[in-house]
Amino acid sequence: MSGWIAIAGLGPGAAALVTPEVSDALAEATDVIGYIPYVARIAQRPGLTLHATDNRVELDRAAHALTLAAQGRRVAVVSSGDPGVFAMASALFEALEAGPEEWRALDIRVLPGITAMFAAAARAGAPLGHDFCAINLSDNLKPWSLIERRLRLAAQADFAMAFYNPRSRSRPDGFARALQILREECGDTRPILFARAVSTPEENLRILPLGQARPDMADMRTMVILGSSRTRLIERSGPPILYTPRSAA
Amino acid sequence: MSGWIAIAGLGPGAAALVTPEVSDALAEATDVIGYIPYVARIAQRPGLTLHATDNRVELDRAAHALTLAAQGRRVAVVSSGDPGVFAMASALFEALEAGPEEWRALDIRVLPGITAMFAAAARAGAPLGHDFCAINLSDNLKPWSLIERRLRLAAQADFAMAFYNPRSRSRPDGFARALQILREECGDTRPILFARAVSTPEENLRILPLGQARPDMADMRTMVILGSSRTRLIERSGPPILYTPRSAA
Repeated sequence: MSGWIAIAGLGPGAAALVTPEVSDALAEATDVIGYIPYVARIAQRPGLTLHATDNRVELDRAAHALTLAAQGRRVAVVSSGDPGVFAMASALFEALEAGPEEWRALDIRVLPGITAMFAAAARAGAPLGHDFCAINLSDNLKPWSLIERRLRLAAQADFAMAFYNPRSRSRPDGFARALQILREECGDTRPILFARAVSTPEENLRILPLGQARPDMADMRTMVILGSSRTRLIERSGPPILYTPRSAA
Repeated sequence: MSGWIAIAGLGPGAAALVTPEVSDALAEATDVIGYIPYVARIAQRPGLTLHATDNRVELDRAAHALTLAAQGRRVAVVSSGDPGVFAMASALFEALEAGPEEWRALDIRVLPGITAMFAAAARAGAPLGHDFCAINLSDNLKPWSLIERRLRLAAQADFAMAFYNPRSRSRPDGFARALQILREECGDTRPILFARAVSTPEENLRILPLGQARPDMADMRTMVILGSSRTRLIERSGPPILYTPRSAA
């Protein structure tokens, strides 16, 4: 039996947003490894072992996956969204680089998924329809000074901005500082989207001017998207449409 | 009969990367509208009308879709990748905003897809595993000066960068200028990925130092990804793995 690792993206939540490529890999896997709420999305079946672990143990989880694959097992490492976007793919390659030489011969594939910012953008309209950036607001693995520098430069470049991991119980204050910096750079009228739990039954979207955004509007299940200077709203009887035109002039 | 529009992302090429949500919308549509090579990916069936149009007529195509939906037809507007990323969603909302008031009452959904940069990143490893930006290098709809400004600020922010539409026959010189700017800002050793026609039979990937990148390595089917200062290669007997670690310090 020849082992492999598929680092697979489950998308934002709905089954209709899981690619057939990922579904096929999950059907062939002997082991599924991931953070507890993501593994909970995988149906149990005979011959499949589920390994659910807590957050913040990404390197241990990656090493476990590599060890199992080296033993000949077919391992799906699952992330929500896209595994290549602030998720398990980089963690797995960090473990691979630091591990035994034999791991480099393993069959390892990254299977992309629908990442949170595009699921959120699609629900709101097309706020990421022109040049944009994606920034992880967690300062667990980078200094806050770098986050602040990136926020200011991104604003000066007039990117639309998508923010992952805006706020958690262990980092209650960073998002307030981020909002303050963004107001300094972009003013109070720029539209901002808070999109929580997109594609799940708890989905909730709100769009408001940056000056009215409050830190407690975001948690770890919230995707935050700030428009560029060109981003605009189309008002209608239902929820408005938030979009960035293709033209920058 | 109640009309609708689904602005649907077909992903980079392979059927295994089309979400079930998009497949379902295509199965229910009476009309499919899009650029010729994307409409060519849709199987003909009784009751379905295919409307394939040339490039650079996005607004006409959008107005056509809105007109059909207002007549009660079920219209899928197809893009490759994700329709919200340098594709048809923004064009459709531009046409909606400029059009008759009644269009605003239409049922319009954006259905996300796997965009080219994540398909390319997945094949190479995880070069977009940390903060990054996406820039459309076409100057058809924005001045070159803005592109240059964004490239320099993105480099100063130390983003990994994904470049859409790097080069076409009508714009042979812009990509050479972009590479020159990036070399000035990032040096010659930064790894750059050229990923052409990912997930199709013509797929081709090459990774090299920025100093060795040549403009003719890209065309309109090529996704170009430049690493951040942290992006690294894992050498092995097969193709190397290109990835950006999660930690920035």
